[in-house]
Amino acid sequence: LSSSRSRLELRHPGGVTPILIGAGLLAEGAGELAGWMADRTVFVLSTPVVRKLHGTRIDAFVDAAGRRLDLEAPDGEVAKSILQADRLWQEMLQHGGKRDSRLVAFGGGSLTDLGGFVAGCFLRGIEVVHVPTTLLGMVDAAIGGKTAVDMPQGKNTVGLFLHPTALVCDTDVLTTLPRAELRAGLVEAVKKAAVLDPELFAEIERDLDLLLAGETSALARVAGRAAAAKCRIVELDPFEAGPRKVLNFGHTLGHALEGVLGYSGFRHGEAVAYGILFALRLAARRHLDVDLGRRLFALISRFNLPEMPLGVAHVDALIAFMRRDKKAEEKGLTWVLPTHLGAYELTSSIGWPEVETELKAFLAEPFAVPF
Amino acid sequence: LSSSRSRLELRHPGGVTPILIGAGLLAEGAGELAGWMADRTVFVLSTPVVRKLHGTRIDAFVDAAGRRLDLEAPDGEVAKSILQADRLWQEMLQHGGKRDSRLVAFGGGSLTDLGGFVAGCFLRGIEVVHVPTTLLGMVDAAIGGKTAVDMPQGKNTVGLFLHPTALVCDTDVLTTLPRAELRAGLVEAVKKAAVLDPELFAEIERDLDLLLAGETSALARVAGRAAAAKCRIVELDPFEAGPRKVLNFGHTLGHALEGVLGYSGFRHGEAVAYGILFALRLAARRHLDVDLGRRLFALISRFNLPEMPLGVAHVDALIAFMRRDKKAEEKGLTWVLPTHLGAYELTSSIGWPEVETELKAFLAEPFAVPF
Repeated sequence: LSSSRSRLELRHPGGVTPILIGAGLLAEGAGELAGWMADRTVFVLSTPVVRKLHGTRIDAFVDAAGRRLDLEAPDGEVAKSILQADRLWQEMLQHGGKRDSRLVAFGGGSLTDLGGFVAGCFLRGIEVVHVPTTLLGMVDAAIGGKTAVDMPQGKNTVGLFLHPTALVCDTDVLTTLPRAELRAGLVEAVKKAAVLDPELFAEIERDLDLLLAGETSALARVAGRAAAAKCRIVELDPFEAGPRKVLNFGHTLGHALEGVLGYSGFRHGEAVAYGILFALRLAARRHLDVDLGRRLFALISRFNLPEMPLGVAHVDALIAFMRRDKKAEEKGLTWVLPTHLGAYELTSSIGWPEVETELKAFLAEPFAVPF
Repeated sequence: LSSSRSRLELRHPGGVTPILIGAGLLAEGAGELAGWMADRTVFVLSTPVVRKLHGTRIDAFVDAAGRRLDLEAPDGEVAKSILQADRLWQEMLQHGGKRDSRLVAFGGGSLTDLGGFVAGCFLRGIEVVHVPTTLLGMVDAAIGGKTAVDMPQGKNTVGLFLHPTALVCDTDVLTTLPRAELRAGLVEAVKKAAVLDPELFAEIERDLDLLLAGETSALARVAGRAAAAKCRIVELDPFEAGPRKVLNFGHTLGHALEGVLGYSGFRHGEAVAYGILFALRLAARRHLDVDLGRRLFALISRFNLPEMPLGVAHVDALIAFMRRDKKAEEKGLTWVLPTHLGAYELTSSIGWPEVETELKAFLAEPFAVPF
């Protein structure tokens, strides 16, 4: 049992966040976090689906709480709104939440994004522990201190940096995760592996069938390694001033696809997968090693992605969305392009005419090999 | 001219915030902040009254901005709402605000509290410069990184710690400040002087008539010295984990008075003045040096405070409010009580029965000398 467990530490300006990954962690109770909950009011934020699937695990984990109060947010991206945050703050105040109260966020990436934001602003910040229930949450969303809600003008446009006190990733919860969610989470692991961790890339290539089938020990290994890759880059650049931009690989077009489809057509990871394919096109005209290009292209092709809804994903709408990208600084968009396995370049010098031409060709035939 | 100017530096976990204090700073333009605004989108947040009174000074100060966009919030505490923040975030997104955009908050303590919160959460944080237009803002509200909005359940209950990139305090703007606002701001200077800075206390005793009459050079001296006292305590304890609680002197009952009066009966500083008088009662039963007690009592008595609206400020309502105080930790309220000039004690051991008895006596005769 313990062999498939790992413990990482993420060092950041506010301290150190332990990241516990493995099977059965929740059922064993809070463990080293029991003291953190004892004699405190612990707000337990979750969604109807998560509570239904994992209620017993939640109960076991927060059993050490001095006083437990349940909070609920809707499932999915719709949770990430100022309206939801406002309602939660008011409930927490009505229930006597204080500066030394705690919040535990049980759920997917949207729920931990919301939970982190709510905790970070409640009485100017209370401590939060994230318990991600999706692979995406474990390898990406819940790590790195980014919290946010969405505005009508764009996703993740209001939020702050707040690292959780700890991150508890129990891979047992992945057994109830729909396969499409698993696939979407794996895309973020592939993203990191391609530009940051050659060994992880080879492991995903080798185990992809097991991973897509939900084999827990393979998932625990990949989750641990992908989380470690993210920790290293976040430690280098906690506020995304430079190197951390690499995590945006595949996200420039990915975010635009999600936006143009109204955040309902694709899962985040599915949109990012298409974003990676498009970045490969731009990279092929620059410093991409063709061997990496072919391997990454082949790997993404095995994901059996849902088809691109071409009637909606128009070139013009996508370009307009990218021009407004919140990651654009006043000087323009930065593209993350792979070079060879484990390496990448950041470039702000790609003109809109080239993006437009390549995007037209890409939309016409997303799976056409560009090299 | 330059003799009445001072420059302080506040060291905090995010860096160093210069605090410039003196006459004529705004009219001279951005000075060392010109580079911070150049080639950037600069959002200029202000209120109708501030714009009317100081429009020319604002124009001069932000003249160096690459692109200037004006934002407006209502005057007074009503600005500090999630509704206002939400509207401002949306306007900033609609106008193409980016991660390297800037915000300049021109206004009183409410406006800089709102502006800091809006900047701190916009795209997970953009830089802000505060330009306080009230004495309260210069000596207290805009210093120390506390930002917040209010909820129906309490003031300042949602917010975060974000230090401004700089603080520009032009005492020229105080010439248009109503005398009652000046008096309310001076209370915060007296608060700090009594427990932190004996020389400042003596200076306020000596110059009070000049200060209340709005004499600018006396105000500039006191503002600089009170700001310095606040900087020292904030540097010791950036997140109010311990020593910074001293700044809560007079605020336990002060906040309750404001709350019970619906945040409209008293100015903040007026409520704090009554809070100081009440703290003196509790302190008189403990370690208060009678000489300090008499001097502080006499000084507050010279402020010509508005009368306590006894029909509204009931004992029961005030006690109920204090029990919900957001600064209460699960273990109870901490009172800040002066001991001798420049010193104080923090105590969590005052029982509610004593508070209630003393409060009844206090409300019956607020200006009865308790020693």
